[in-house]
Amino acid sequence: MGAHRRTCKAAVLERFDEPLAVREFDVPEPAEGEVLVKLLASGVCGSDVHMWRGKDPRTPLPLILGHEGVGEIAALGSPRTDIVGNELAAGDIVMWERGIMCGRCYYCVVAKRPALCPSRRTYGISVSCKEPPHLRGCYSEYMLLFPVTNLLKIGQDVDPSSLVAASCSGATAANAVEQCNVRSGDTVVVQGPGPLGLFVAAFALDAGASTLIVTGTEQDRKRLDFAEAFGATETLCTSDMSGENMVERLREVTDGRGADVVIDCTGSPHAMRDGIRMVARGGTYALPGVATPIGELPVRFFEEVSVKNVRLQGIWVSDTSHLYRAARLVGTGKFPFKRLVTHVFSLEEATQALEVTEKREAIKAVIVPAG
Amino acid sequence: MGAHRRTCKAAVLERFDEPLAVREFDVPEPAEGEVLVKLLASGVCGSDVHMWRGKDPRTPLPLILGHEGVGEIAALGSPRTDIVGNELAAGDIVMWERGIMCGRCYYCVVAKRPALCPSRRTYGISVSCKEPPHLRGCYSEYMLLFPVTNLLKIGQDVDPSSLVAASCSGATAANAVEQCNVRSGDTVVVQGPGPLGLFVAAFALDAGASTLIVTGTEQDRKRLDFAEAFGATETLCTSDMSGENMVERLREVTDGRGADVVIDCTGSPHAMRDGIRMVARGGTYALPGVATPIGELPVRFFEEVSVKNVRLQGIWVSDTSHLYRAARLVGTGKFPFKRLVTHVFSLEEATQALEVTEKREAIKAVIVPAG
Amino acid sequence: MGAHRRTCKAAVLERFDEPLAVREFDVPEPAEGEVLVKLLASGVCGSDVHMWRGKDPRTPLPLILGHEGVGEIAALGSPRTDIVGNELAAGDIVMWERGIMCGRCYYCVVAKRPALCPSRRTYGISVSCKEPPHLRGCYSEYMLLFPVTNLLKIGQDVDPSSLVAASCSGATAANAVEQCNVRSGDTVVVQGPGPLGLFVAAFALDAGASTLIVTGTEQDRKRLDFAEAFGATETLCTSDMSGENMVERLREVTDGRGADVVIDCTGSPHAMRDGIRMVARGGTYALPGVATPIGELPVRFFEEVSVKNVRLQGIWVSDTSHLYRAARLVGTGKFPFKRLVTHVFSLEEATQALEVTEKREAIKAVIVPAG
Amino acid sequence: MGAHRRTCKAAVLERFDEPLAVREFDVPEPAEGEVLVKLLASGVCGSDVHMWRGKDPRTPLPLILGHEGVGEIAALGSPRTDIVGNELAAGDIVMWERGIMCGRCYYCVVAKRPALCPSRRTYGISVSCKEPPHLRGCYSEYMLLFPVTNLLKIGQDVDPSSLVAASCSGATAANAVEQCNVRSGDTVVVQGPGPLGLFVAAFALDAGASTLIVTGTEQDRKRLDFAEAFGATETLCTSDMSGENMVERLREVTDGRGADVVIDCTGSPHAMRDGIRMVARGGTYALPGVATPIGELPVRFFEEVSVKNVRLQGIWVSDTSHLYRAARLVGTGKFPFKRLVTHVFSLEEATQALEVTEKREAIKAVIVPAG
Repeated sequence: MGAHRRTCKAAVLERFDEPLAVREFDVPEPAEGEVLVKLLASGVCGSDVHMWRGKDPRTPLPLILGHEGVGEIAALGSPRTDIVGNELAAGDIVMWERGIMCGRCYYCVVAKRPALCPSRRTYGISVSCKEPPHLRGCYSEYMLLFPVTNLLKIGQDVDPSSLVAASCSGATAANAVEQCNVRSGDTVVVQGPGPLGLFVAAFALDAGASTLIVTGTEQDRKRLDFAEAFGATETLCTSDMSGENMVERLREVTDGRGADVVIDCTGSPHAMRDGIRMVARGGTYALPGVATPIGELPVRFFEEVSVKNVRLQGIWVSDTSHLYRAARLVGTGKFPFKRLVTHVFSLEEATQALEVTEKREAIKAVIVPAG
Repeated sequence: MGAHRRTCKAAVLERFDEPLAVREFDVPEPAEGEVLVKLLASGVCGSDVHMWRGKDPRTPLPLILGHEGVGEIAALGSPRTDIVGNELAAGDIVMWERGIMCGRCYYCVVAKRPALCPSRRTYGISVSCKEPPHLRGCYSEYMLLFPVTNLLKIGQDVDPSSLVAASCSGATAANAVEQCNVRSGDTVVVQGPGPLGLFVAAFALDAGASTLIVTGTEQDRKRLDFAEAFGATETLCTSDMSGENMVERLREVTDGRGADVVIDCTGSPHAMRDGIRMVARGGTYALPGVATPIGELPVRFFEEVSVKNVRLQGIWVSDTSHLYRAARLVGTGKFPFKRLVTHVFSLEEATQALEVTEKREAIKAVIVPAG
Repeated sequence: MGAHRRTCKAAVLERFDEPLAVREFDVPEPAEGEVLVKLLASGVCGSDVHMWRGKDPRTPLPLILGHEGVGEIAALGSPRTDIVGNELAAGDIVMWERGIMCGRCYYCVVAKRPALCPSRRTYGISVSCKEPPHLRGCYSEYMLLFPVTNLLKIGQDVDPSSLVAASCSGATAANAVEQCNVRSGDTVVVQGPGPLGLFVAAFALDAGASTLIVTGTEQDRKRLDFAEAFGATETLCTSDMSGENMVERLREVTDGRGADVVIDCTGSPHAMRDGIRMVARGGTYALPGVATPIGELPVRFFEEVSVKNVRLQGIWVSDTSHLYRAARLVGTGKFPFKRLVTHVFSLEEATQALEVTEKREAIKAVIVPAG
Repeated sequence: MGAHRRTCKAAVLERFDEPLAVREFDVPEPAEGEVLVKLLASGVCGSDVHMWRGKDPRTPLPLILGHEGVGEIAALGSPRTDIVGNELAAGDIVMWERGIMCGRCYYCVVAKRPALCPSRRTYGISVSCKEPPHLRGCYSEYMLLFPVTNLLKIGQDVDPSSLVAASCSGATAANAVEQCNVRSGDTVVVQGPGPLGLFVAAFALDAGASTLIVTGTEQDRKRLDFAEAFGATETLCTSDMSGENMVERLREVTDGRGADVVIDCTGSPHAMRDGIRMVARGGTYALPGVATPIGELPVRFFEEVSVKNVRLQGIWVSDTSHLYRAARLVGTGKFPFKRLVTHVFSLEEATQALEVTEKREAIKAVIVPAG
């Protein structure tokens, strides 16, 4: 058990569209099974902006935002090991599963897909700070983890900021690429070069994609350059090319077949319409980017799905196995994840962090709560 | 090599919407690798009606209809074995792959999914009888098989009529259920109790479905009774229940989750809208029934696909492995396939066979060319 | 929370090879998360005999034997749901996972194979009754389940005795057949027609095996008859046939190929030597029967494994997903599991139950602790 | 159709243990479906040495050795496309499937595993040059391919020598890694750093292995350096470490678990005994290196296979899908395959090529028949 401060600050979403308020909270003593962590880095995710703007009215106010975190263990309620068997102790650097699952239901123990647990909640998204112990989000100096939360100890030499996106975008990307069964020699298209898209690109390359094409808009130019640094064999700018031209380009590089796997990381109906058409016979179109309602999208099932034996695959969040693989991938050093962190802010600057994310100035903005 | 007649009769589609014409053709001598078969039973498929009615204007006229056949080898162009190693001889009863694939392309040898071979053609569908050797459809006394066509020898004791649907509906059903990964304990819904749907039901039960629900319309009453004879645990009549009620019923029998797998065998947009909603989180909605254009269908991707991590899976035809499994399933005697054949016609009555199929009076109509 | 007795009886293994002693224990009040169950049926497993005879000297004495149970909830330490979401209450009939896993390690949350959890213990096998709360085995009137134990509610109309084997043999069989990827049309051989073998046969048939052959010795005659009642297409008596003859017989029924899957449920090196040879090219030989040390077995890897691209697959116990599938399979009524229970005993007769199991007089002996 | 010489030279194995004889043969005109190729590079494989030394007495003498080839099309018997749809023409650089399968049997069309086709033969191994058209091996200026042989067109800029091993070692490695289901984050051990082992290492890394350890003997020092150049995270010299120490080292780098996948590329019983022990619970031990009889190997099934739920997987040769993936992997430029070719010989020097391979002086020796 470590010593820790009695009170701490956290950035709270109290009213939609207004600056986050930095508030003071008591730091609780962890009960049996719980873990108190001191945040070293907290990632800003697109869905944070979404909640801030009130686009999801079910957001439970007041809320400490932030579901991506890397921290140092401040205190343990009782002895705990991490998911690979390390005995945990105060001072250890850790990541943790952002979803809070029940661990007992059909999805958790029979289907073994805890991401689909019907009672899943998420730190920084669905647990308000109204009631004690308050500290359930990452835009905070301290955070209290439920006993059910799985942790993974990280080496002391790893940069917390470069790892933080692994806990959300990275894990979701691991889930997406796993479900798509990408294999050696495949041609993969990633639509949208944000943090999710770049992680998807990295996992697809890691799974053996020989041809990896990333698409983005004019606004994404810098991100497309990053995609090339990650190993994309080609990038296409959708502002310069029609969907028809992109489909044509895919055919050129695939002996006329199209892509084995296309993964949408935009959530844009426009991109999806083009994306489906890029898929080869027998291929897969996966949708991790559809994280908020987009209304109805018309699909020509006979021509685009049936005749081509295509799979349209929804992808929803991730579980601890994916967090593990994302942390492991960052750890290999195969990809320049460190370069994704373009902006770093203090807790007091949390609102600015949301702004640069909203304007897509940042690829990844990170809050360092300890200041 | 067997002796065979010099000429034979076949029922030819010469003009859409008009009665088939029974014409006489020379019976060719098979060249190297070719096989000449004498038809014992020829199945009438829904797509035969479709072509007859001119709904697919690409149909190459004149055409001997019929892609489902069981026959007796009349002559072999050269020694051949079947797919399980039996040396073939004149007099053997055989089935064969209805698709004519190239056997050399990416889909045939790399992806190992010959159903997706871009140059795939089909006996009785895409090979006109205009040019010699003419006999490329099953509504005929004789038929000449290409060297590339795979054959399977059948026991002399098997009733050809009860086996004939295995070569199309049965094989496609095998493909659908295989791609859906149905497993022990699953809940499966089959929409549409025609020959395809009943084969899908049989394969789903054979793969371990514990709860199997078949849905159909008022018009399908008799077919729903058949579904129960096949082992459906429940049938639902869509004329009596709203989609909402059916979704509710699924929830009741699945502890609130919905079906692991829903397989559409109707091709009806209306059924599909309900079907997607019956799928459980993490489940699959497969579409073997979408065999002709149905226009655009609007999908609420966020709510029905992404959040639920659902897979929408196109299914296109089948290959020889599926034919083998379909024949094997019929051979086990686990399911009352024989009872599906409700109508038998001579070659001269081929047009009537199309009519009873169109009116859905028949579950399966079979033409016995030998009369 | 239900009322329950203050003390209860349990059959205790105190010394190897001696009769079990019926002892009295205090019935504890369940703490948070714990569940107190009143046993309705307790299965006698071959490994119980093994422990009784002292063949596993690591057995922690004194021990309440019994890891297969069906019971009625007597009291809940706190509100709980079962794995399909039923709110549990006193009076509910339940089954539960016999293994006690950590729920936090690499195998539990990353590999999602909790059967391989290194800290797995088992009720009735590895938790002594020396210390309070004592009641950790099924040969007892009451039993206290750990908070981590998953439960499954059973219908009031199900016969507890016929279900009890599902929690061990059934679950292990589900695991074995799942790992073997048995599919429609396969030929499967099951060696050894005991409870494990009969469950394996049932799951293999349920997964689509078209040809299912069960082998056993002269001593197993009655069990081979049961195998036929379960749907085996053929049984072979190893006392009547040489290994060579059995391999030959397999070839006859598989067009010369051999079995797609052979599953050993004997643990006998002699059977294994024959079993490997029955496997077809590309097939699998699985070993759920090897539950105790059998020394070294010589394998001709080139001839029997490499050239044939064969898989030798160890199978170790099971997890909650397998328990669920086993209970579900029994629930379908597809197989005559009820008939397996050939002997029923009271708690006082526990030693006799072990004896009839040891002598293989019983197929399945069940203790009904409530007497 | 291209012009070609009337006669050509080939290196013939006429008597075991004696120098190959360079003989002159007529160059045949290809018949329908056949392809005549002019060899640009012919790889020397360990099994060539094996045959030369008479260790496989079934070798059909006289024999033109060589089953790994890259060549230029000299003439086509009839129009042909390659497996990705390129129309082939004289002058095209091509690779081809070294196995000659029937394309019609259960393994070819139902199981879709043509590597297991019972009538599979291999160029340069099982087709003697005694009878016309003689030219069925790669140690030759020209070679005539059967109609059933699949071809893959290669870019004119690719170095034939660096690609030639892809057709045997590369394809077998693709098959091995595919069957082992290596995935992102896995720890993989490759035993034996010859051409097969280095290809296996490359495919394992390409499939996502995060930790890749290659083991070899003192004699393999140079090869272990190559393994590091390929991306091995560590190499272990079995001459310096006991098996116990290696198992211990594996535990250190895997949080105590062992390797997810161990792939033997030595065929040595000694290595296999150590290798099995390095496998983690639930892991796989695959055996592509066991290409010749090695007698009996004792296995402690309970301790090493059952309790650990380990899979022992035989791997036998490969098919065209694996050839495709191997060629594709070489084409990505991710790995320094070019550096493997340490020795180049003319056709007249074929015996020397066998010698440097036997003495393990070469990593890969290549014969350039055109001289």
